[in-house]
Amino acid sequence: MPRSRLSVQTYIDGILTGNRVILSQAITLIESNLMSDNILAQEVLQSIMPHTGKSIRIGITGVPGVGKSTFIESFGTLFTKENKKIAVLAIDPTSQISGGSIMGDKTRMENLSINKNAYIRPTPAGSSLGGVARKTRETMFLCEAAGFEVILVETVGVGQSEIAVKQMTDFFLLLMLAGAGDELQGVKRGIMEVADALVITKSDGENQKNANRAKIEYENALHLFPSKENKWFPPVLTCAALQNQGMENILTMIEKYIIHTKNNDFFITQREKQNLYWLHQNIKDVFEEKFYQNQHIKNSIEEYENKVKNGNILPWQAAKLLWNMYENGLENKGS
Amino acid sequence: MPRSRLSVQTYIDGILTGNRVILSQAITLIESNLMSDNILAQEVLQSIMPHTGKSIRIGITGVPGVGKSTFIESFGTLFTKENKKIAVLAIDPTSQISGGSIMGDKTRMENLSINKNAYIRPTPAGSSLGGVARKTRETMFLCEAAGFEVILVETVGVGQSEIAVKQMTDFFLLLMLAGAGDELQGVKRGIMEVADALVITKSDGENQKNANRAKIEYENALHLFPSKENKWFPPVLTCAALQNQGMENILTMIEKYIIHTKNNDFFITQREKQNLYWLHQNIKDVFEEKFYQNQHIKNSIEEYENKVKNGNILPWQAAKLLWNMYENGLENKGS
Repeated sequence: MPRSRLSVQTYIDGILTGNRVILSQAITLIESNLMSDNILAQEVLQSIMPHTGKSIRIGITGVPGVGKSTFIESFGTLFTKENKKIAVLAIDPTSQISGGSIMGDKTRMENLSINKNAYIRPTPAGSSLGGVARKTRETMFLCEAAGFEVILVETVGVGQSEIAVKQMTDFFLLLMLAGAGDELQGVKRGIMEVADALVITKSDGENQKNANRAKIEYENALHLFPSKENKWFPPVLTCAALQNQGMENILTMIEKYIIHTKNNDFFITQREKQNLYWLHQNIKDVFEEKFYQNQHIKNSIEEYENKVKNGNILPWQAAKLLWNMYENGLENKGS
Repeated sequence: MPRSRLSVQTYIDGILTGNRVILSQAITLIESNLMSDNILAQEVLQSIMPHTGKSIRIGITGVPGVGKSTFIESFGTLFTKENKKIAVLAIDPTSQISGGSIMGDKTRMENLSINKNAYIRPTPAGSSLGGVARKTRETMFLCEAAGFEVILVETVGVGQSEIAVKQMTDFFLLLMLAGAGDELQGVKRGIMEVADALVITKSDGENQKNANRAKIEYENALHLFPSKENKWFPPVLTCAALQNQGMENILTMIEKYIIHTKNNDFFITQREKQNLYWLHQNIKDVFEEKFYQNQHIKNSIEEYENKVKNGNILPWQAAKLLWNMYENGLENKGS
């Protein structure tokens, strides 16, 4: 049984006046798998759209152990000290498997979680990255409408989740560990290339020397990549979040980026492109959901996969046969 | 009017006996946009499938100017000297725009094009990468059935074509230029990471010093990436194809890779995974073709894109509305 729901207008009014309880309930609607909740959620979202878009959206990624929580705790607090309201969201593909969530345990951010200017929301559960990413992006809109001025979206360096976060944020920050030797160990191939900045964490005490060496290595590596469309050269910084060292430099750097990209219109064009990205991505998501959940397809896909794998049938032929199966099912439904 | 076609059996017999004229005609069927040709082509392909898979498939990429033709001319000739039959295919996304083809001009490979052990086929024309990639992969199968023992698939460093080539070959070779300073200038982000080897071209005379310096830089850069699933560490080599220097080292290296991956079963599992990749890719291709060519969608997509871009409607809502439009069209067709 679904819990009792409020009226659309109650959600909207609550969100626009910054009522956290109602905001949380509205996010629960978005995360719900009930059709009735989804319809309600979409009505709410559509109404609050004119009040969205005014925040700075910052994506943060890095391998487990890099110190993301500590970083966000320290970095987020910087904003709240300026009396800015900050929301922390997450896309965690591992939670789909483990059932746990990187953001589930608010004790990881002890201070931020009780800070009145901060709002922390764990990653939504979901069976597909597409669904999880969409729900996080919609949650971001609700937070913006509720008056949050900075949105941090956290993810771990696994699978495609970083692309999703990159595609919903204005600035994409990659946290790195200074290791011995192979600096990119564990960092997903390709992520360094889309980062707007690299930050080497845990640069304190003995580790400072390593961090500075890593900084130079990364600067050299970044130097090898072609320049970006936004004419922004990704800098490499170091920090020690636990000691709150180097955090203000990072904030200053991001502010510089925002001014830079607002001046050359990249800021707005990137957001427009992101909207289009999500339209065509969501079209694919709708299709995949419909297609792979279709009973005819469910009954046959494994058989075709095996045939294709072993070279008994060409992929294109299998694809067309499966598609015909799907379309015929739809046509018969209509007749 | 379509030209007269042969019978399915005539194509099959011709291909299996290595008749080049019939092979070329069969490839023309694959490349044709006529429905009747496609049906014929698929029948031929299905019949020759048991005779495919025995070649070594090598993908080659690099920016324009890196010397791909000269490289392939020299490298391909090495195989023919061992009396091996080699086919050279291409996926050229730029030919969709310019109408020209990187492989269209056989004079670029003067010697290879008249070599009796070599067969050069220009990139198929096509409006989508998905279609072009599929046609090239099917052409590869025909060539294998016709007895070609080595297939080179060439592409340029633009767009997604490199992923397509990577997904249809056993070994992926990235050609690089030794430049001054920024060594990765112009190399598409992410491609270095999926290469099985890097080869620095034009390493002769004055340029040798630069090439050797670039070799060390690339080796350092590759060293930063995590090790690959196939336990193969991508080497960096230099060559001067015009002078036929360094080419045999490259051949030896690829032979070593083939033995290595056949021993650890990566060779066969990669091919199986590629088959599955193309199944699900082709399902998407069929869907996109059907969806975006649908008259209802054609009439409405731009309007929805603009609304989504400007934030007037959420991507997910637009996607669902468009999908309903599409499905209703199908259902009405069936009733």
